[in-house]
Amino acid sequence: MSKRIAGPEIERLIQLLAKVPGLGPRSARRAALHLIKKKEQLMEPLASAMGEAAEKVRVCSTCGNVDTVDPCTVCTDPRRDPTTVIVVEEVADLWALERAGAMNALYHVLGGTLSPLDGIGPDQLNIKQLVQRVSEGAIKEVIIAVNATVEGQTTAHYLTDQLGGFEVKVTRLAHGVPVGGELDYLDEGTLAAALRSRTAF
Amino acid sequence: MSKRIAGPEIERLIQLLAKVPGLGPRSARRAALHLIKKKEQLMEPLASAMGEAAEKVRVCSTCGNVDTVDPCTVCTDPRRDPTTVIVVEEVADLWALERAGAMNALYHVLGGTLSPLDGIGPDQLNIKQLVQRVSEGAIKEVIIAVNATVEGQTTAHYLTDQLGGFEVKVTRLAHGVPVGGELDYLDEGTLAAALRSRTAF
Repeated sequence: MSKRIAGPEIERLIQLLAKVPGLGPRSARRAALHLIKKKEQLMEPLASAMGEAAEKVRVCSTCGNVDTVDPCTVCTDPRRDPTTVIVVEEVADLWALERAGAMNALYHVLGGTLSPLDGIGPDQLNIKQLVQRVSEGAIKEVIIAVNATVEGQTTAHYLTDQLGGFEVKVTRLAHGVPVGGELDYLDEGTLAAALRSRTAF
Repeated sequence: MSKRIAGPEIERLIQLLAKVPGLGPRSARRAALHLIKKKEQLMEPLASAMGEAAEKVRVCSTCGNVDTVDPCTVCTDPRRDPTTVIVVEEVADLWALERAGAMNALYHVLGGTLSPLDGIGPDQLNIKQLVQRVSEGAIKEVIIAVNATVEGQTTAHYLTDQLGGFEVKVTRLAHGVPVGGELDYLDEGTLAAALRSRTAF
């Protein structure tokens, strides 16, 4: 838009909204108008919720999750099994696994994957803290739930090495056909893995 | 998610983000994580931009647009032609027409369409102010740019009646084939209108 059609405060709101993942320049406009329309019900509460979260958010010193308390809500949940730790790359992966609701374990967030070309070595990731947690002896199983990418798998191998000296079972996620997936659309690697790991009916 | 995996401040942020158009429950989670990651660069500025906009936003007493000043940026723009007014249903339509950049006119935002069943009569819309603006004599053309819906067209007819007593040209948007549109996918009404309003090559 070449001509200004609204005051600088509204233009700035639109520019910032456009940086939120899921919103582009056009939907940021729509979102801004909706927020303006629902000023009391949405814009004001959202502004204050965002300000409050920004003020209170911190990284859990135990597992690397983000929360408003440290240790985080997951680490201090007494209903979780403290002998199993799921290692993930990012907090988003932790949330995704929680949505699946299949395990009742603790987590450890690496904060990324090993990527020497980008200057990300073991010291840039939350790996020392994982080894420290395992060395304390209460953890019986570490499930490595990193992405099935080259970087993810490299990181998984490195972690397995690092945890080799401890009395702990190290496992990883199964490869296979996604639930609801059609064989015709799957890559050869996935199909081969699904065949190799076939299970009895 | 049955179990809490983050503090109440983060859960509340996600719930409010999910109400922003363009974001659903899942993308609200992703947006919240991104905001937390970019706390200084995005979350804090966005929180304050939203708060500031919420505080300053007002409805233009001349045209019904929303802005942080009254009269709004559009009404006070000296480069616009004050003899032409485009009547739209909502502020979003004003923004859409400005994106097209085809006219350099003023606007008038009705705030909706006539809808007797929903209790929306002429008094619920910004119609008196339009008649008042036209009665002042400076406006030579009123372009009625409402949606091509039954409610929109009913409102257009009502406006034409109301403006009948003044020395003003009342026009409306052309019906026809959308640019880039394929005839095969268009409804009969649009095709008939496009044929009726055919123009010479």
